Amino acid sequence: MSQHLKDALQHTRENRDEVLAQLRDFLTIASISDDPDSKGEVRRAAEWLVDRLKLLKPDRVDIFETEGHPVVFGEILCPDPSAPTVLLYGHYDVQSPEPLGSWDTDPFQPVIHGYNLFARGSSDDKGQIMAMIAAVEAIHTTGPLPVSVKFLFEGEEEIGSPSLGQCLKDHRGEFACNLVLNTDAGMLGPDTPTLVYGLRGMCRFILRVTGPTSDLHSGGYGGVIHNPIHALCELISGMHDKEGRVTWPGFYDSVREMTSEEHDEMAELPLDEASFIEQSGVSRLWGEPGFTPLERQGVRPALDVIQIDAGSPKAAIPVDAQALVTVRLAPFQDPDEVRKQLVSYLETQTPSTVQWEILDWSGFPATLTERDAPGVAALLKAFEIIWGVRPAYYPSGGSIGAVGQIKEILGAHSLLTGFSLPGDHIHGPNEKLHLPTWEKGTMALVHFLYNLVE
Amino acid sequence: MSQHLKDALQHTRENRDEVLAQLRDFLTIASISDDPDSKGEVRRAAEWLVDRLKLLKPDRVDIFETEGHPVVFGEILCPDPSAPTVLLYGHYDVQSPEPLGSWDTDPFQPVIHGYNLFARGSSDDKGQIMAMIAAVEAIHTTGPLPVSVKFLFEGEEEIGSPSLGQCLKDHRGEFACNLVLNTDAGMLGPDTPTLVYGLRGMCRFILRVTGPTSDLHSGGYGGVIHNPIHALCELISGMHDKEGRVTWPGFYDSVREMTSEEHDEMAELPLDEASFIEQSGVSRLWGEPGFTPLERQGVRPALDVIQIDAGSPKAAIPVDAQALVTVRLAPFQDPDEVRKQLVSYLETQTPSTVQWEILDWSGFPATLTERDAPGVAALLKAFEIIWGVRPAYYPSGGSIGAVGQIKEILGAHSLLTGFSLPGDHIHGPNEKLHLPTWEKGTMALVHFLYNLVE
Repeated sequence: MSQHLKDALQHTRENRDEVLAQLRDFLTIASISDDPDSKGEVRRAAEWLVDRLKLLKPDRVDIFETEGHPVVFGEILCPDPSAPTVLLYGHYDVQSPEPLGSWDTDPFQPVIHGYNLFARGSSDDKGQIMAMIAAVEAIHTTGPLPVSVKFLFEGEEEIGSPSLGQCLKDHRGEFACNLVLNTDAGMLGPDTPTLVYGLRGMCRFILRVTGPTSDLHSGGYGGVIHNPIHALCELISGMHDKEGRVTWPGFYDSVREMTSEEHDEMAELPLDEASFIEQSGVSRLWGEPGFTPLERQGVRPALDVIQIDAGSPKAAIPVDAQALVTVRLAPFQDPDEVRKQLVSYLETQTPSTVQWEILDWSGFPATLTERDAPGVAALLKAFEIIWGVRPAYYPSGGSIGAVGQIKEILGAHSLLTGFSLPGDHIHGPNEKLHLPTWEKGTMALVHFLYNLVE
Repeated sequence: MSQHLKDALQHTRENRDEVLAQLRDFLTIASISDDPDSKGEVRRAAEWLVDRLKLLKPDRVDIFETEGHPVVFGEILCPDPSAPTVLLYGHYDVQSPEPLGSWDTDPFQPVIHGYNLFARGSSDDKGQIMAMIAAVEAIHTTGPLPVSVKFLFEGEEEIGSPSLGQCLKDHRGEFACNLVLNTDAGMLGPDTPTLVYGLRGMCRFILRVTGPTSDLHSGGYGGVIHNPIHALCELISGMHDKEGRVTWPGFYDSVREMTSEEHDEMAELPLDEASFIEQSGVSRLWGEPGFTPLERQGVRPALDVIQIDAGSPKAAIPVDAQALVTVRLAPFQDPDEVRKQLVSYLETQTPSTVQWEILDWSGFPATLTERDAPGVAALLKAFEIIWGVRPAYYPSGGSIGAVGQIKEILGAHSLLTGFSLPGDHIHGPNEKLHLPTWEKGTMALVHFLYNLVE
């Protein structure tokens, strides 16, 4: 181990409390990207990051404006022009903390209980951003960087990264890199450092069912008019068969088959039925037959209605009923094909007593990481050094829109990892960051940046 | 026709514009009983009525406080102590006008277009209250009343009359009467004066389905956990068979069979399939096979989910999903039995992946009017005089909680009629009152009060 690396690791340990204090400050900013009233807070988070990056004495730091929330850019060059450039990706926006009443503490007043830091964004994704900054800082403070580093921190990940693509096109040269490290993908457990080799794609849309031309008194029309709420429930109910398979015609036709190696690897991961039950609090799992829970989550598609907003307490049969639906896509499923499958389902299954329409459709495909992609070996080695175990090679069920856009526009591949844990309640109440894991993660990132040039 | 009756009818005609102006003023009060923020407006409507009744120089007028909104009481005695006492029932509260955007005009700024007066409450029920007041006023101003008259105007009809029962018990003597006229039941068409001989009962409850102990990211758990929204939709979907019959075990067992006379009478009413289609704007009707639309609405039960509030735009599988459900009960269906049928359905149909519970259950049975009940002949004769046609004898699909409570506590029977029309959009946007019908109704009420002692 070189002296510089030793010094960098030492600096990481000594700097830990200072970085944690900074993270706590960062977490007080309510940068909720889907809330128009929080626009100022979102910008304040971007500016906070600019100020923080300036402490690194970077070659450049900037805010790139977009049609939505701004993108933060930073750059620190390696003295050796032949060294690779790593783009470190994170997002400074957070999900809404609603319902506030379900939190034990104020989501924007970070509190440490035991080993955990509780706050909205602690794990997703501000803690991850700070781990990357701290790792770069430790190396850069103690000697020359072994690689060039760029930062890309966006403010719209939680709303599907609608402005990122144009920003990448507008700044293609500035963002040019050899590989991307994306620490927004999490890990399987505190003792299981993880390289995520797959992300599911996503389609998102509103299904609207319409009936009468005005709300009708349920006394005067109950039993005579097909209630759009019932019709919507019937359509949703019919989207899965009794065993949990999606019924849209052709839905599974193009889904990638698992290799037997993949199947065996997944069976060894510490995510069995019992762990899913424990994390979720349900008494029994559910889903497509013939696959393990982890396979259903990681490499099989899933259809979830995430919201229904229909009717009112008034005793009336409403004009319409709407459901907000997401479909997590498996590799090789094409969003446009999936939309056709949905239309085919609706055309054949909707009764003639109501009409349907699809609103606000959006979609992007799944991504897969090849095992010999740049940086994979460096990351796995860093994890082995810190955790002393063989890292998990894991297909996540999540979806990160930025990954596909970066691949398409910059031509760069993303390494997907991170230090959030399955029980961190990201997107839910009482989101937390497990601090010992976060510290290990920061140390591992120091090794990773070094490993890239060994 | 007596001179007094002639004078009273003349007074009704001459007073029409004045009463209409008063009604317009009354309609500017946003007395929305289910809105806590409108509590002051609800009280203001009660006080408005007290002031209006005082113009009749009554023997007594008062506000009775309840745990909820107040009840307005008024009394005008007949000089002849052997004359019967008629209790005139109405409600001064209104449904919420939401969604406001669907109204063409401000719901609380009454506007006349052609023959119609548009405002929330114009037809349901402030216009009906003013018709009763105007009829009593016309007779009382021009001579002695032929009967004693009492007024009962409640402020909680639209929320199921939760405080009325206790108020009736507290003031049993003051409300004592020989019969009740309830003008909140409407009529079948402008040329079809109507005596409503049946009202459906109602059960109302929330069905809550619960799953995981916290909201779960749909990327990490989609395909693994049974989404409570899906489970709720499956349960709702299963509550009707493909043809529209309710599937709760034993649901139809105690429903009263129609008589053949009733069937023939209903077939003659001006409410055929085409009229339901025209009123609702749907392309095809729906419901229990083997019955006409009018029969399904009037004498058969109906189950309607009137609201679903579940999930959020966050990509999460939620902790729970709730549906607000109403069941319109046919005569002889017992609310307690219906609850048992629901429980039986839920126990056998809910998958073991989720739990269910029933919240906020309330229920009251249907009511039926015998054809020889007091006042029936007087009302039918009044309608024949004014409209020149044989009145319709009609089983309404609606539900009025007050009717059962009055029968039970005061021992008095309610005559159900009214001058709102099927196209008046009560409970919906652009509620209106058809003024020529309203004027005829007022005249008919003058005749009715006279007919009671002929």
